Amino acid sequence: MTTARVEAFSDGVFAIAITLLILEIRIPDHVATGALGSALANMWPSYLAYFTSFATIGVMWVNHHRLFGLIERCDDALIGLNLLLLLGVTWVPFPTALLAQHLRGPDQRVAGLVYSGTFFFIAIVFNVLWRYAIRRRLVKTHVHVESIRRQYAAGPILYAAIVGIAAVNATACLLVSAASAVYFALPPTLWQPAS
Amino acid sequence: MTTARVEAFSDGVFAIAITLLILEIRIPDHVATGALGSALANMWPSYLAYFTSFATIGVMWVNHHRLFGLIERCDDALIGLNLLLLLGVTWVPFPTALLAQHLRGPDQRVAGLVYSGTFFFIAIVFNVLWRYAIRRRLVKTHVHVESIRRQYAAGPILYAAIVGIAAVNATACLLVSAASAVYFALPPTLWQPAS
Amino acid sequence: MTTARVEAFSDGVFAIAITLLILEIRIPDHVATGALGSALANMWPSYLAYFTSFATIGVMWVNHHRLFGLIERCDDALIGLNLLLLLGVTWVPFPTALLAQHLRGPDQRVAGLVYSGTFFFIAIVFNVLWRYAIRRRLVKTHVHVESIRRQYAAGPILYAAIVGIAAVNATACLLVSAASAVYFALPPTLWQPAS
Amino acid sequence: MTTARVEAFSDGVFAIAITLLILEIRIPDHVATGALGSALANMWPSYLAYFTSFATIGVMWVNHHRLFGLIERCDDALIGLNLLLLLGVTWVPFPTALLAQHLRGPDQRVAGLVYSGTFFFIAIVFNVLWRYAIRRRLVKTHVHVESIRRQYAAGPILYAAIVGIAAVNATACLLVSAASAVYFALPPTLWQPAS
Repeated sequence: MTTARVEAFSDGVFAIAITLLILEIRIPDHVATGALGSALANMWPSYLAYFTSFATIGVMWVNHHRLFGLIERCDDALIGLNLLLLLGVTWVPFPTALLAQHLRGPDQRVAGLVYSGTFFFIAIVFNVLWRYAIRRRLVKTHVHVESIRRQYAAGPILYAAIVGIAAVNATACLLVSAASAVYFALPPTLWQPAS
Repeated sequence: MTTARVEAFSDGVFAIAITLLILEIRIPDHVATGALGSALANMWPSYLAYFTSFATIGVMWVNHHRLFGLIERCDDALIGLNLLLLLGVTWVPFPTALLAQHLRGPDQRVAGLVYSGTFFFIAIVFNVLWRYAIRRRLVKTHVHVESIRRQYAAGPILYAAIVGIAAVNATACLLVSAASAVYFALPPTLWQPAS
Repeated sequence: MTTARVEAFSDGVFAIAITLLILEIRIPDHVATGALGSALANMWPSYLAYFTSFATIGVMWVNHHRLFGLIERCDDALIGLNLLLLLGVTWVPFPTALLAQHLRGPDQRVAGLVYSGTFFFIAIVFNVLWRYAIRRRLVKTHVHVESIRRQYAAGPILYAAIVGIAAVNATACLLVSAASAVYFALPPTLWQPAS
Repeated sequence: MTTARVEAFSDGVFAIAITLLILEIRIPDHVATGALGSALANMWPSYLAYFTSFATIGVMWVNHHRLFGLIERCDDALIGLNLLLLLGVTWVPFPTALLAQHLRGPDQRVAGLVYSGTFFFIAIVFNVLWRYAIRRRLVKTHVHVESIRRQYAAGPILYAAIVGIAAVNATACLLVSAASAVYFALPPTLWQPAS
């Protein structure tokens, strides 16, 4: 199987997972007359969780393409590892809804750990996939594998830190996750004048 | 990353968002014998909101392709701005269901503002994206950037007017949105005889 | 815009609409011990409606590709007509669930009319689209447009007949729809020995 | 119609079906303070069913591509058989949710039979499709059709055995299904050192 086919399938899964997130935001029920505005404002944890998960999946999609742009050939195990990565991505809507619902409740830290743990898992699989591709020489010959290995190793470290934050406060965990995703999705160069 | 890959991913997101709209139309519950016809007729706000959002996303998909047909190269920030655009598109099913449910209620204007505000946001991001592409010289060299910039500037003006209408009456906001989308989706040339 | 891009987007919408059908089949609630088998058997209208809509969308997808295989160029109005076709396709999950729920109830004929009327609408748009493509000379030059026009004209006639059946009996309407779709999806040549 | 087009559409359906699985995992309702962790742990049948169906659809997607990589031409009946295969794939979210809900209940074996029966059906259609392609000489000339026919015949035998297990115990059926899918998705070569 070519990497093109694997990338097209992965693209589909990323696109669907990122779009399904909206189904977790429900219309508020039993709203008193004139209270729709405040009912909607009160749903801010849903919007924040939606935005954070959207931006994080978006950044992961960009990274997925960068990685597969460096890979020349696929074997069965690489396809399997990619399925494991996609398992993590399709899982995201569940912890997103869970965290949104419990962000202000007594069990916020459990929800935060499930949420950040999901991204930690995905970051780990990214690393396993890349190391496997190097070990089996599936990577294009001119690629500096070592520098890329170091870049990807930063992912699990970042998300391990966010798991640590979730163990203390779920809102802080969500805000740091959002800030990280925005930093990578809308890079600082966006604000710089053109050279 | 090539623009082809970004367009394929965006196509997927547009196609899913436009198809998910139907999930917001629920089968009427607890219908008395012989009353299904009138129960279905009574759901006209859902159909109108569905149709309007479908046509608007359809027109935005066409515009998205036109824009990316003029862009030669992608950089990280352009991909990030495109994700921001897709964030707006995947958000549409939520205000669509909200407006359908509240169109005849006392809080119709709040729902109408959320609905029209979503399209205003998307129109703004279209403009930011195009200006960024020009500034960074990502656009094909033969393109008359100025005339296209003026065309796209019409989007925020149209949707700002529709936001203004929503502040007065949600049904009028929805009808004007529908008429605008039909005008662009089924252009006047459709009804003209072939030359 | 090339027809390739329009076909890829349409493929996405067809694939999503056909897959979303399953969301309308709900797990039976409040099942007494030992009664799951009969509760599942009792849901046969859902399975029959699911199967019929799946097969019908499948056949429409095949026809959509045949049609666009004959079209050389796209213009704005053709893209608009194709969006109108896709509007019909994305709508299908709603009447499918409606008919499944009301197939054995007193309002079965209303549900049957909405269901068959949807396919009648799609068949009409197929014809309008093809006639427009001929009139504007968007069709490949070697194509025998007249014989194809006659083939596509059979669609509205078939579905007008099925609308007529729905006005009498919804189950008969569903069975004839299913039989028609199977006839076109699994053609008689499947059962013939290879020459 | 080219096999490329059929594969792209099938890819879309596989990608959507595998991503929709997550919608069957619902946020636990009415959780007492401090009990979210145990409520989530108590949902293990949902996670196990989700994982098993994800891995099984993933392996089927890989097999689908292998098969179509050997097929040179499509005819109408092959497209119809492929739709029958996709019918089975899009059906998977329903038995997945059914089995998850009933895994610890008195009707677990009924749910297990519906679940394993779905995969048995898909395995049968894979075989019918391949035999049809051989009979009609749609397969590339250099392919050793007989050895592949034997490989694919193993699918129905495996799933017939799993149906038999389901008739005794649903949890065992689910665990054997999961182990089979992991074995094929993450093959033993993954753990071997590079040569």
